[in-house]
Amino acid sequence: MASQEVPKTCKVILADTIAKKLLAEVRDSLAQVQSSAAARPTLAAFLANDDPAAAQYAEWSKKTCEENGFDFDLRKVNKEVLEEAIVAANQDDAVDGIIVYYPIWPNNQQQDRYIQETVALTKDVEGLCHTHLFNMYHNVRFLDPPANLKKSILPCTPLAIVKALEHLQIYNPILAYGNRLFGKTITVINRSEVNGRPLAALLANDGATVYSVDITGVQVFTRGSGIRAPRHQVLDKEGWGLKDVLPLSDVVIGGVPTENFKVPTDLIRDGAVCVNFSSYRNFDGPAVKEKASIYVPSIGKVTIAVLLRNLVRLIANRPRPEAAQQ
Amino acid sequence: MASQEVPKTCKVILADTIAKKLLAEVRDSLAQVQSSAAARPTLAAFLANDDPAAAQYAEWSKKTCEENGFDFDLRKVNKEVLEEAIVAANQDDAVDGIIVYYPIWPNNQQQDRYIQETVALTKDVEGLCHTHLFNMYHNVRFLDPPANLKKSILPCTPLAIVKALEHLQIYNPILAYGNRLFGKTITVINRSEVNGRPLAALLANDGATVYSVDITGVQVFTRGSGIRAPRHQVLDKEGWGLKDVLPLSDVVIGGVPTENFKVPTDLIRDGAVCVNFSSYRNFDGPAVKEKASIYVPSIGKVTIAVLLRNLVRLIANRPRPEAAQQ
Repeated sequence: MASQEVPKTCKVILADTIAKKLLAEVRDSLAQVQSSAAARPTLAAFLANDDPAAAQYAEWSKKTCEENGFDFDLRKVNKEVLEEAIVAANQDDAVDGIIVYYPIWPNNQQQDRYIQETVALTKDVEGLCHTHLFNMYHNVRFLDPPANLKKSILPCTPLAIVKALEHLQIYNPILAYGNRLFGKTITVINRSEVNGRPLAALLANDGATVYSVDITGVQVFTRGSGIRAPRHQVLDKEGWGLKDVLPLSDVVIGGVPTENFKVPTDLIRDGAVCVNFSSYRNFDGPAVKEKASIYVPSIGKVTIAVLLRNLVRLIANRPRPEAAQQ
Repeated sequence: MASQEVPKTCKVILADTIAKKLLAEVRDSLAQVQSSAAARPTLAAFLANDDPAAAQYAEWSKKTCEENGFDFDLRKVNKEVLEEAIVAANQDDAVDGIIVYYPIWPNNQQQDRYIQETVALTKDVEGLCHTHLFNMYHNVRFLDPPANLKKSILPCTPLAIVKALEHLQIYNPILAYGNRLFGKTITVINRSEVNGRPLAALLANDGATVYSVDITGVQVFTRGSGIRAPRHQVLDKEGWGLKDVLPLSDVVIGGVPTENFKVPTDLIRDGAVCVNFSSYRNFDGPAVKEKASIYVPSIGKVTIAVLLRNLVRLIANRPRPEAAQQ
């Protein structure tokens, strides 16, 4: 009986759409912080593994850098000299930010962690230095309280997902900054130290109830009743699984790095928002489009835009040239 | 440990804020449809009862009309001559829209219904003529398909709540128009023919799962799995009550016209959005502010803004003066 066509119910949003908006903001911010228009910021990227995915990601990053006013300096080095190469870049005024492609020692996470800490805080574009991680987990947004002039850097993929959820209006701008996910229930499948755990923390710090799921079980991250706690707390949900948390979730985020895993579509709520950040498709595309209100099949391009956003933040955090001349 | 103050978690949004934005839009639309700047549209308002609330509402409407470029012509008449007075106004070119304050015969709803149908469709600013009601329930948005130039009029209070939920970003503008509540679960407490039932239908037609609650029980209004139906369908939920539906609801809307009823705060979801459209406070204010993310304590001023919005729609639906001169 309706007089108009019923539109398709699932809206597919591509990373490219979100990335373009962010990159426009990045170019604006860059113009504001640059000491002279001629000086293009340089991102030094260290490739010390043989992972073709890392090489591909470096290639995309280079292209995005160059299209948006940045220089991308790819440095292929042996694992053995990586630490010294990073120390040299830390001390080189011509390098504005440093990215390292992980894993370098796939069987020794502690050694990768050591390298992450080797990068200077002022050039840590990935937000992986302990001070940046500590601030993120504690919902501390600046490096220099109480002045609060220097923003703390957040890890790229988790922040890319936050930016995607802002674009999708899951963050409600009517609410106070810092509380804009209050009332939202979100499942994050993956609890790695690089992606899933920081993501769950960021979303819970912003007010959401977050179910963090991995092969060891389910944890819930929240700021408590009425989000009265200043940062998230974590509780184990003994015996819980996807069957318990997916039907409760407004947003489902998949980040499982295997080809075989698929989020069970029948457990997803009608009208949920589904976001995949794994390089594998964690959702059954055709089926999820019959059920979700919004589906974001990948996030990689947003991650690269966030990388440049972080680089501009690092530059903005530095003492201005006039101040440095004293 | 947080470096910033934790902001208050519940945002209280007053009807006035929402109404002001709508009235600015109404003035803009009026300027576009007016044949000459001098001709102020006239709303004829028939008061045929002794209800002090109706007289008060008429007073507010008059003030809002006059502040926004409309004339408000209050006509106090006896019940016995009301029908003839409306017929005369239907035929009077100086009257652009007609509002009648109900109930007129509190013990004879059929007779009130007869009066509603007496108002000419082209002057029915309240959207209570059968054609307007039929279109609303069937999710038909225009009076003249397939040309779709003349918009069908929606009842004022239900539409005011829709406009409030748009303002609160509960409608997600990322989704296709007509589907923007997909994924949202909403409880409406009140299923009157004038307010609660049309409201449940409007929200479900826009994609929500709506639990409609009154003293006879719970019904669910939805467009089905994946909102594939073009309009809502209604199912009885035998044995269900507020205890079943409130914990599921992103949005809770109270419209119970008694002083004694209060929505049980303990059943409301942490971070829910709570909206009251009753002239009594259906929520326990201090308690609900400890739990809700957004609280809208009243809606009356938005209803008056919507009344003027409907009046401009009626004017826009008319043949333009040039066309009428043939």
